Amino acid sequence: MSTRINRRITLAARPTGAPKVSDFATVDEPVPAPDDGEMLLRTLYLSLDPYMRGRMNDVKSYVPPVRIGQTMEGGAVSVVEESRHPEFSAGAVVFGRTGWQQFAISNGKGIRPVDSSLAPISTALGILGMPGLTGYVGLLDLGQPKEGETVVVSAATGAVGSLVGQIAKLKGCRVVGVAGAEEKCRYAVDALGLDACVSHRDADLAGTLKDQCPDGVDVYFENVGGKVFDAVIGLMNVHGRIPVCGGIAHYNDTGPPPGPDRLAGAMRIILTRRLTVRGFIIFDHHHRIPDFTRDVSGWLREGRIVYREDVVEGIDNAVGAFLGLLRGENFGKLIVKVSDDPTI
Amino acid sequence: MSTRINRRITLAARPTGAPKVSDFATVDEPVPAPDDGEMLLRTLYLSLDPYMRGRMNDVKSYVPPVRIGQTMEGGAVSVVEESRHPEFSAGAVVFGRTGWQQFAISNGKGIRPVDSSLAPISTALGILGMPGLTGYVGLLDLGQPKEGETVVVSAATGAVGSLVGQIAKLKGCRVVGVAGAEEKCRYAVDALGLDACVSHRDADLAGTLKDQCPDGVDVYFENVGGKVFDAVIGLMNVHGRIPVCGGIAHYNDTGPPPGPDRLAGAMRIILTRRLTVRGFIIFDHHHRIPDFTRDVSGWLREGRIVYREDVVEGIDNAVGAFLGLLRGENFGKLIVKVSDDPTI
Repeated sequence: MSTRINRRITLAARPTGAPKVSDFATVDEPVPAPDDGEMLLRTLYLSLDPYMRGRMNDVKSYVPPVRIGQTMEGGAVSVVEESRHPEFSAGAVVFGRTGWQQFAISNGKGIRPVDSSLAPISTALGILGMPGLTGYVGLLDLGQPKEGETVVVSAATGAVGSLVGQIAKLKGCRVVGVAGAEEKCRYAVDALGLDACVSHRDADLAGTLKDQCPDGVDVYFENVGGKVFDAVIGLMNVHGRIPVCGGIAHYNDTGPPPGPDRLAGAMRIILTRRLTVRGFIIFDHHHRIPDFTRDVSGWLREGRIVYREDVVEGIDNAVGAFLGLLRGENFGKLIVKVSDDPTI
Repeated sequence: MSTRINRRITLAARPTGAPKVSDFATVDEPVPAPDDGEMLLRTLYLSLDPYMRGRMNDVKSYVPPVRIGQTMEGGAVSVVEESRHPEFSAGAVVFGRTGWQQFAISNGKGIRPVDSSLAPISTALGILGMPGLTGYVGLLDLGQPKEGETVVVSAATGAVGSLVGQIAKLKGCRVVGVAGAEEKCRYAVDALGLDACVSHRDADLAGTLKDQCPDGVDVYFENVGGKVFDAVIGLMNVHGRIPVCGGIAHYNDTGPPPGPDRLAGAMRIILTRRLTVRGFIIFDHHHRIPDFTRDVSGWLREGRIVYREDVVEGIDNAVGAFLGLLRGENFGKLIVKVSDDPTI
């Protein structure tokens, strides 16, 4: 067992602006053996998500940053290869925050079984995992869309946004997505069933969005920031809601962007239109997991929603795929297939 | 009757930046006589409030702007001089949005009686009126302060802020005010009972505020914007609430302020600390008037809260007083005494 190698990706340097390949390092070590009460996990699928960019900065956020030399953090679906833990047997498929590596030792903390009967196990990283829960809670609990209202979702084909848009459609809303590439916009309409999708590269984004939202915007699901926020906020209706899930346009900022200062204008609209702008992090909402799992797995089974994965092969491609994610190059939930899935 | 003169103040020009005396005009006309179903009101007290600055701009807001040549809008306490209205008798004291003038004809719409047994009738413009209701609803319903939490209130000695701070103290919070002049800061602590009050002129506002909020800030009652917002938002605790009531620092802005752009930084804090930022306009919350009137008049009667009025004599001084209000020169609720109060 111990002659096998565990390859892991560590943080080598804190990036300034956009991360580079040299900000990461690859470390090969013998696969460790589990002690009593521990188990050895083999990573099947590693999730790559925009929030990971924030963990690379030495800045107080909602959790401590990754330290230099530490394995990059991330959620993964794994199989138990060897267990000396009373609750997990060899062969079980589990989810855990085991990081960017091929193997991990775990004492079971934060590890939960993945139900392979619901859907392919990789969905535990996407539509049935953290991104799906984020979209479900952010839209339903914070956005509170009502039938006939208009919902705008940015990053509309991403892991979170694609579920937001589809749930909003199920709730009877007009739904307008914002995405980058033309191909993504087509997918948002044709596959996700959105009423329209606008490219953020549109030279008159605000005007095009306004045309697509003739009754204004009641819920803006914010993933992006920057010019998309600017274009949408001017269209918000009185008593509109803005769940703030992310702001990927700014994750590589090295300081406040140049002027003019848009804050006072945003606050004026928040005041006069009586908007509710609410930030959320999904770990505050884990009590919703049972409802989420029941609803979303049901919609999947009934064919009422779809999902799309962008699967990259091998841990060695994780860094390149992550850098592409920050440039919006993925199309669907970005996943690294680290080793062979025993369930398929 | 018709030989008497009604002096009214109209909007002469839309201001660019800070309003000037020449943006207003004084018009003298014979006092009109009421028709059947109408009454003649004599203005006793006129309210001057920051929101009036917004009404001078030709910009869509939550209500249409004042037109050029139109009497400036505003709430007032008046006495019914002559009534041909079935529900109001001569001598009754009433509140209505009758504007900057000495007399007004009304068909009764939006007119409500003022209960002179609760407190001096001028309080219907302040602590028992719209500003008081704004503070009550904004703090209790939107801010939702809990015992032991820290509340920061800007414009802490103003018509709204002075009630916010006192109610927060009644609810068992640590309360830190922000005001301008040293005299106002002293009043906030000595008379309003706040734990501390910081001047926004402090060269290290963020540092001084941090010293006064050792456990961070749970509720920031936002009246001001600008550098006060900047100083407070960095101190907000996870799950903090920011009711947005106004932003007087920006009311004279002629466009977006120069950079850097503070919006992305504010959104990052809203996200990572899971803040709720919620704009409100008091006319959405009129269902709370019975609770508000019962609670605040009760606290007044019991001596648990105090209020302060800054009374200017005569309609001819309204413009100067209003310009001073926008510079923060008033101390307490700004009121113009337009004619003699028959109740005192």
